[in-house]
Amino acid sequence: METDSTAVLFPREKLVRRGYLMPIGGAEDKQDERTVLRRFVALAGGHAARIVVMPTASSLATVVGQRYREIFRTLGARQVEVLNISSREQAMDVSHLTAFEGATALFITGGNQMKLSAILGGTAVLQRIRDMHSAGMLVGGTSAGASAVSQHMIAFGASGSSPKQRMVQLCPGMGLLTQAIIDQHFSQRDRIGRLLTAVAHNPFILGIGIDEDTAAIIDPDKRLEVVGRGSVLIVDASNMSYTDIHDAKGYRPFTMCGVVINTLTSGHKYDLIERKPILPEPQPVNI
Amino acid sequence: METDSTAVLFPREKLVRRGYLMPIGGAEDKQDERTVLRRFVALAGGHAARIVVMPTASSLATVVGQRYREIFRTLGARQVEVLNISSREQAMDVSHLTAFEGATALFITGGNQMKLSAILGGTAVLQRIRDMHSAGMLVGGTSAGASAVSQHMIAFGASGSSPKQRMVQLCPGMGLLTQAIIDQHFSQRDRIGRLLTAVAHNPFILGIGIDEDTAAIIDPDKRLEVVGRGSVLIVDASNMSYTDIHDAKGYRPFTMCGVVINTLTSGHKYDLIERKPILPEPQPVNI
Repeated sequence: METDSTAVLFPREKLVRRGYLMPIGGAEDKQDERTVLRRFVALAGGHAARIVVMPTASSLATVVGQRYREIFRTLGARQVEVLNISSREQAMDVSHLTAFEGATALFITGGNQMKLSAILGGTAVLQRIRDMHSAGMLVGGTSAGASAVSQHMIAFGASGSSPKQRMVQLCPGMGLLTQAIIDQHFSQRDRIGRLLTAVAHNPFILGIGIDEDTAAIIDPDKRLEVVGRGSVLIVDASNMSYTDIHDAKGYRPFTMCGVVINTLTSGHKYDLIERKPILPEPQPVNI
Repeated sequence: METDSTAVLFPREKLVRRGYLMPIGGAEDKQDERTVLRRFVALAGGHAARIVVMPTASSLATVVGQRYREIFRTLGARQVEVLNISSREQAMDVSHLTAFEGATALFITGGNQMKLSAILGGTAVLQRIRDMHSAGMLVGGTSAGASAVSQHMIAFGASGSSPKQRMVQLCPGMGLLTQAIIDQHFSQRDRIGRLLTAVAHNPFILGIGIDEDTAAIIDPDKRLEVVGRGSVLIVDASNMSYTDIHDAKGYRPFTMCGVVINTLTSGHKYDLIERKPILPEPQPVNI
């Protein structure tokens, strides 16, 4: 068999560069070191940051929005605004677009990611977010806000480590990341089975599972760097030699062969285009 | 509320023109008038057509592939080749890419669309199909082969006319159509509920439900024309004023308000970019 897997998928020369993305696995430290949120503010521009907080996914949106506003201000951002879009009518109202004027970053809180897709999908507010991100605006999000940045989004699913048919529900997300599906609260909620299932449906897409208090910082060239206390698991099934997902009935487990995983901790990097880790420079053998 | 819904979604000036798409709702006439398949051969170039038939989704792939080969030859296409990719190993084998040399059309048979996404996803064969389609190759498909052309694909689901949470499973498809989700055997299998559910997740995307022996011919400018015996239903939820899909528990029905549907029969047209029907020219009032 002649194969040339490097020739396919996402060629670097066709990559559309956009702003940074910073999906966070949820439950990030908000009181002590605040490593993850501190990094978000730094990426947003530090003192010069102008951050829009969007608590749409949260059930206690006002409280959650204000809490992040205070944290980001404590961490040095001078301008932080909470934009509490809670209905499609609001999301279609172009008067709310002024909130994004001069914004350097958007932060999407946790909650229910289907609120983000169902309320924002096809509206002026989401289109503005997409345009601003294309022009360079950082987009960060935690938990539901992390899942929602993908084009193919995990809406919900079941826990467990074995991949099973029907254990994950996908739907279109905010469309800011085309190369990967993001999952969060990853090892804490035993979600590897559902991430494997998600990529088995169509192995062109990578799976990224982010632990709590951990983030994947994705730069405009789609190089990912881990920051925070836990791990980021990356699933690459593009060279999967066999699956029988299409034959699995009901909620049965199914087979996947030749799936590559990488589990990365803080400071480690992975190239989402080349589909390989960017390893630390080795020390010279002769000193 | 100020809204400007025409400014968002898929601006015409950003549209990437590709070849024609011809999703067919399944069970198309193969013996008598063969209106739908005849139109496919005409679009493929008639006598000059060079058609690749891909029976990957089918359980009786060899029989089904040969049957379509005979039909297309009877309808005038001089060159018809069956490419029976049945495993990921075959799909990754670049020696199979020669089948597409000079091809004017690809025809994808029915069966199980998850075989198409799981076997072809991320492989050299699918990348070649995508490149050829970008360069102008017609892609047609029936039943599973119709569903699979979308970027967001219905993998499977339940029947019934009321939208209910968890009644539809989406996953990434072949990525040839970004603006719409396609469903098939549409009125015959009572699938409007699942199509409504699919678009409710994220209303940026249109839903296209195609009846049996009916096709939606989508031109490079994303104008759709219906051909065949049944109807094509188009669901536009982009101006949906309200949904509570994100609050629906388990398999419960949920609310959608302000969803626009169009049901079109043979000869009628719809613009997937403008999201409106292209109506027949009215007769002059004064003759």
